[in-house]
Amino acid sequence: MKAYLSGWESLCASSGALRFIDINLRGIGQVMFQDNPLSGALFLAAIAWGSIAAGVPQVAICGAIAVVVATLAARLLRVEEASVRAGLYGFNGFLVGLALATFISPGPLLWAYVALGAAVSVVTMSATANALKALGVPTLTFPFVLVTWLLLLATYGFAGIAGDALPAAGVIVPFEPIASAQLGAGDFLKAAMFSISQVFLKASVVAALLFLAGLAVNSLAAAVAAVGGAILAVLTAHLLGAESDLITGGLLGFSPVLTAVALGTVFHPPGVRVAAYAALGTIFTVVAQAAFNVALTPFAIPALTAPFVLVTWIFLLPKQSFESAAAAKPDSTR
Amino acid sequence: MKAYLSGWESLCASSGALRFIDINLRGIGQVMFQDNPLSGALFLAAIAWGSIAAGVPQVAICGAIAVVVATLAARLLRVEEASVRAGLYGFNGFLVGLALATFISPGPLLWAYVALGAAVSVVTMSATANALKALGVPTLTFPFVLVTWLLLLATYGFAGIAGDALPAAGVIVPFEPIASAQLGAGDFLKAAMFSISQVFLKASVVAALLFLAGLAVNSLAAAVAAVGGAILAVLTAHLLGAESDLITGGLLGFSPVLTAVALGTVFHPPGVRVAAYAALGTIFTVVAQAAFNVALTPFAIPALTAPFVLVTWIFLLPKQSFESAAAAKPDSTR
Amino acid sequence: MKAYLSGWESLCASSGALRFIDINLRGIGQVMFQDNPLSGALFLAAIAWGSIAAGVPQVAICGAIAVVVATLAARLLRVEEASVRAGLYGFNGFLVGLALATFISPGPLLWAYVALGAAVSVVTMSATANALKALGVPTLTFPFVLVTWLLLLATYGFAGIAGDALPAAGVIVPFEPIASAQLGAGDFLKAAMFSISQVFLKASVVAALLFLAGLAVNSLAAAVAAVGGAILAVLTAHLLGAESDLITGGLLGFSPVLTAVALGTVFHPPGVRVAAYAALGTIFTVVAQAAFNVALTPFAIPALTAPFVLVTWIFLLPKQSFESAAAAKPDSTR
Repeated sequence: MKAYLSGWESLCASSGALRFIDINLRGIGQVMFQDNPLSGALFLAAIAWGSIAAGVPQVAICGAIAVVVATLAARLLRVEEASVRAGLYGFNGFLVGLALATFISPGPLLWAYVALGAAVSVVTMSATANALKALGVPTLTFPFVLVTWLLLLATYGFAGIAGDALPAAGVIVPFEPIASAQLGAGDFLKAAMFSISQVFLKASVVAALLFLAGLAVNSLAAAVAAVGGAILAVLTAHLLGAESDLITGGLLGFSPVLTAVALGTVFHPPGVRVAAYAALGTIFTVVAQAAFNVALTPFAIPALTAPFVLVTWIFLLPKQSFESAAAAKPDSTR
Repeated sequence: MKAYLSGWESLCASSGALRFIDINLRGIGQVMFQDNPLSGALFLAAIAWGSIAAGVPQVAICGAIAVVVATLAARLLRVEEASVRAGLYGFNGFLVGLALATFISPGPLLWAYVALGAAVSVVTMSATANALKALGVPTLTFPFVLVTWLLLLATYGFAGIAGDALPAAGVIVPFEPIASAQLGAGDFLKAAMFSISQVFLKASVVAALLFLAGLAVNSLAAAVAAVGGAILAVLTAHLLGAESDLITGGLLGFSPVLTAVALGTVFHPPGVRVAAYAALGTIFTVVAQAAFNVALTPFAIPALTAPFVLVTWIFLLPKQSFESAAAAKPDSTR
Repeated sequence: MKAYLSGWESLCASSGALRFIDINLRGIGQVMFQDNPLSGALFLAAIAWGSIAAGVPQVAICGAIAVVVATLAARLLRVEEASVRAGLYGFNGFLVGLALATFISPGPLLWAYVALGAAVSVVTMSATANALKALGVPTLTFPFVLVTWLLLLATYGFAGIAGDALPAAGVIVPFEPIASAQLGAGDFLKAAMFSISQVFLKASVVAALLFLAGLAVNSLAAAVAAVGGAILAVLTAHLLGAESDLITGGLLGFSPVLTAVALGTVFHPPGVRVAAYAALGTIFTVVAQAAFNVALTPFAIPALTAPFVLVTWIFLLPKQSFESAAAAKPDSTR
């Protein structure tokens, strides 16, 4: 694998066009923290499969357009080159494109909306990175969430943009199941797989397997954390009595999957203590996901990955104190 | 008093178990900024009385469990020891326990929910402290508010957790009194006392007196500020025409009481200028409390101490400039 | 012009009363970033005209009272003198006064409410400035927005304060035009002019022209940016299919006008790249304005200038990286 990638890297060094493709693929890979063009290519294949299978090819197309627009915008705005090359200015734009095409009906203004959102996602990414620099925490997908929420909310004020697939506004009432829900082994497996594929707004087992492959080629630990996070999320949601359709649709699990990968493999060295910490964060992300779903009911917009962003920030911010405390006790069990 | 406390401190130094009790009592005392185990013991007595008198003993029990879980979690997470010993990692957990048991019906999952909330409150406390370090303002009860809001919102998505005592979701409409409300001397006194006891989610005159005793044993100024803040809050709310039931229930006064104690005695040296500044903050906290009550109507959750946190942050952040300006004019009247 | 101003400055230096007037006029000028008493005087004339023409003279009166209260409060709180002299502690208070008198019916408590809001706006301004110091971005009108939102939300809880001109709470539904809207040349011009005058909550062509005069006497570029921003905002809103009444009322354009002035002339040196950047920000502010209008529907309060604050912060925060990247390529086209 390493040999192939180093050959590809040589090719990119000699060709501006290949470098541009490389940056965009890394941008897609960074949605799940993987700075690897092969991960990005597998993620893109997963999304293409999922979109075509669901009869919405415009979703994959808008995603591709958006990541290209974002990369071009980053160049125009002269953002720091190393970050651009690592795909850090592409993943938010890519998600903006997927989300807008998922919730808005196709039409000429959709494309303009996607381009606007992708360009603004680059500005927002740079703004968020600067704002968080002193705190030492990453932007995560906050720019995607903020820009997409604004664009989706605005659809209710614009006759030219139809957010037909958005949830309807409702009044908050307690959820009461008609009968106690049973979660069979098949449903459980489907729920865990969809929890992974919904990170990219898709409900597809094939897509989920491609996403896991994309993780595994760059980081086996990340793939394991994704599966572990998905299982833990489904169990937690079921135990607390969440709506079965939400669980099996993967809609309570995609934010926890991201939390598990981020806290368990990306921002901490793997280990037992880290796994326990990541598990606590993953469980609380299920609560946060349910909370955001409720809180956004009056606004008729989806939570996107906001629960992941909030909980992961909360669990990353104390890092320094934990590590310094641990460093001060080198004889402690780790 | 000092002699007793110094004797108690010697005992704690020689016994891990007594030290653990000491930390938890200080955690309860820190709800109203008192780093004193006797204050915490009196506050705990007040809550026990209020809970039993109201027929909800699980409230006091959940509070006690939560503060213990929070202290244990702080140890496990290796948080800085001096802060843990001062009870700074216990008070948010304690309030999470009280609030969850107040708004959620008893049941097996309530205990799990309380333990989860208490543990996450410690992570959130550490995160908030790190995030605010550069700004030089304290966390106040922000971790409690954030964690409890998420846990309460999520109850609407979980069949296993019944938030039966939560407010119902409603549409915002202007409040119009049927007749102009009169506030007699008895109602006025009750309103002021309940404004103090509602800091711990209780409506009880006996509890209020025990809270005042707990303040007085550590800081007479704090007890005076609490009474003064309560009276000022009730007067302001009545003058602006707030709903009588909210006023006499102490529900517009508990955040202002906390603001008065914080701005008037904890974070500023007492004095006439400070008292005027704290009074302005206290009055504006009444407005903020009403505003939060309205803004949270669609979300069907209570404001908790969010108005206190917001207004006190606003009034603490300018501290430096005010003080440096004052220092530059040493001949000015203070 | 310069000669007149330097003569006025000499007069102020010798008279405390004239200095006080000077500070208050600059405070009004700072609503649109102009540290110039003549700008402030023209803005005040515009508001007086607009208020009297609309039969609501109390709006201009409350604005004048509020800016005076804010200036006095800044003195009492010993805020840094240079900022006070530049009017930076007056503009938020002025806007609080205008907004409260616009949305609340006249009555004895309105005046108390205005004074309270103006005083708290000074504390909030100082708090915001301190909180943002490390990020290197200005407060903009955030203190005005925060304080006014709290005061307006609270009206729904107070029988003594009647927010009769506030929007009614509603449920979010997609906007569907009965017939495709046509925007004639007359409507277009009116929409652009009102987009400028609505910065001060007024719909008046005369007021708009006076505002433009007030800008031009201090900065011709600012006046050009205001007109350009207004035209761009009206075009964008119309293209996206926004409600005609909102467009022609200037209600989708006032935040974009502020963004255009801020990004295009105040915080960046003018130029082609800056103009393109400001245009992107202005277009996105139209989206943000529509989004805030929708998001605030359940809360029954107006967006005020929040869309301007949010988008301008997003577009100012990356400044450093953009500029340093540009500085690193001195041969690049600027």
